[in-house]
Amino acid sequence: MRRLRPPEASGDRTLVAVIGGSAPTPEEAVAAEAVGRALAEAGAVLICGGRGGVMEAACRGAKTAGGITIGILPGTDRREANPYVDIPIVTGIGVARNAIIARTAQAAVAVGGSYGTLSEIAFALAFGVPVVGLGTWAVQRQGHPPAPIAYAATPEEAVAQALALARHGG
Amino acid sequence: MRRLRPPEASGDRTLVAVIGGSAPTPEEAVAAEAVGRALAEAGAVLICGGRGGVMEAACRGAKTAGGITIGILPGTDRREANPYVDIPIVTGIGVARNAIIARTAQAAVAVGGSYGTLSEIAFALAFGVPVVGLGTWAVQRQGHPPAPIAYAATPEEAVAQALALARHGG
Amino acid sequence: MRRLRPPEASGDRTLVAVIGGSAPTPEEAVAAEAVGRALAEAGAVLICGGRGGVMEAACRGAKTAGGITIGILPGTDRREANPYVDIPIVTGIGVARNAIIARTAQAAVAVGGSYGTLSEIAFALAFGVPVVGLGTWAVQRQGHPPAPIAYAATPEEAVAQALALARHGG
Amino acid sequence: MRRLRPPEASGDRTLVAVIGGSAPTPEEAVAAEAVGRALAEAGAVLICGGRGGVMEAACRGAKTAGGITIGILPGTDRREANPYVDIPIVTGIGVARNAIIARTAQAAVAVGGSYGTLSEIAFALAFGVPVVGLGTWAVQRQGHPPAPIAYAATPEEAVAQALALARHGG
Repeated sequence: MRRLRPPEASGDRTLVAVIGGSAPTPEEAVAAEAVGRALAEAGAVLICGGRGGVMEAACRGAKTAGGITIGILPGTDRREANPYVDIPIVTGIGVARNAIIARTAQAAVAVGGSYGTLSEIAFALAFGVPVVGLGTWAVQRQGHPPAPIAYAATPEEAVAQALALARHGG
Repeated sequence: MRRLRPPEASGDRTLVAVIGGSAPTPEEAVAAEAVGRALAEAGAVLICGGRGGVMEAACRGAKTAGGITIGILPGTDRREANPYVDIPIVTGIGVARNAIIARTAQAAVAVGGSYGTLSEIAFALAFGVPVVGLGTWAVQRQGHPPAPIAYAATPEEAVAQALALARHGG
Repeated sequence: MRRLRPPEASGDRTLVAVIGGSAPTPEEAVAAEAVGRALAEAGAVLICGGRGGVMEAACRGAKTAGGITIGILPGTDRREANPYVDIPIVTGIGVARNAIIARTAQAAVAVGGSYGTLSEIAFALAFGVPVVGLGTWAVQRQGHPPAPIAYAATPEEAVAQALALARHGG
Repeated sequence: MRRLRPPEASGDRTLVAVIGGSAPTPEEAVAAEAVGRALAEAGAVLICGGRGGVMEAACRGAKTAGGITIGILPGTDRREANPYVDIPIVTGIGVARNAIIARTAQAAVAVGGSYGTLSEIAFALAFGVPVVGLGTWAVQRQGHPPAPIAYAATPEEAVAQALALARHGG
């Protein structure tokens, strides 16, 4: 547990996942940082995969606004967490931890993304956790309407939508 | 371990996943059974989630052709396996077991499908395991080409493609 | 995320697991609550399985002293957390989550305990995470010395030992 | 899937785990091989962690008697299986896979063993799966009787006990 400077806030907090790959474009990294900052400013707690790229940018953004960050790490060493993770959860279960991120969050914001991100989106949809996308995957079954991913134009809009949609009470 | 009547075959076997939801349409169930039968006829071993719907239809098809079937169950009780599973692996880890199905297979055939199926497709793509689709998900990142899922017109074609694409040796 | 009233503390925090069963004796429940309180007073963050019994008593103790509590839940619903869990991590992987508790902690205090507790002790020993016991399991291989579990006489002594032994930096 | 030469047997098969460390003594390796052989001769299917040491010796013994072997691998590559594994299940979830081995088996034989073995014994006890030990862990809660592990004097006796105790039907 590093750098834990929790804000003085109290009461219920919404837990929002930021999901995205470890090799974002510069624009995606900027967007992820803005998402993290906006979540912290809104009093939400950020949960993510705890590693680099989109995850690190989002955590950095959250910490600049005094937020709390949780990293659900795939590996066996807490030192694989990026430097902006307050609470590293060391799962040791590899990418199967993506299901934990999706289940624990009350809403998810996807920024860009790799196949790992796609698996998190799929799990969130399976669990009924709302997903807001910023330049991320579109998924559609042949002969069916597209899956219910909300798409936002800006990081601030994505956070506002995610918080409005967040599933409360489990 | 029930009804294990392994064929007299010997030597290396290709392990192919059949993925799909527990509530298929009648057409999807027919297709899944044909996929299972074609896999067994080709000497492949079938791996799936071990439950009902597409999984049960595929296992039933494989057993009619004397194949071997492995069910990677999500729950804690081997009795949740469908009656055509030879080897029930009782994971107790819920849908996180989808990552195990995708990792263990050397190729995957997706029939129809739910969000759980989508998570398995995502994991297979992440792990470099070839995916062949029959009326299943199409996935695409905004501004990128579609993900490399091969689409087949018939169950037999799907199996032929999956076996041709199967990743050998890990 | 409920009742999160983080203390104003800052800087590095040690993460200590409290492990024990869901059906403790009254004495074990009293001990667990004292362990939780002592951990919080020392500025450590408490991690546990998030449910009832020893876990709930320890979280309650930690909250009376203004501590932070993390619950690594086995099931799929955040509402299975006891009311003193600040950060419920909803794993959905059942008792396999015991490995996550043991890996994430920098030290563990075992109070009484069931076979689940024994699995957590085994994982902690496997990962090199120090274990301090209060009326818990003794384990020994035939023909070998007992496994290196430190036994304490009081909750306060257990916490002091755990913090002194805590493995830092991964 | 390698070297799959399933016997011509049919009907229900008992699934028995052989658990033990990757660095056995020569005597433990000999015992593990004898356990594997005796299981195969009795028509049981062997399940294990799929790697070296006790696991490899047991699989080798089973294959010399024409048995079927399943390896529940911790890592992400099927090539980490020992050469006597017929069906490698590639979990990618690390030692959390120990819970899967314990759940899937209908009885377990522990040979020697490390802390990983101890975690498998703990899970088996938690799940009500009978455990027979050959020179393995003894576990006991302070002030309680020892945990119900059956100890055998020879590999053949261990297998006979395991098959007699095997929990059928989940």
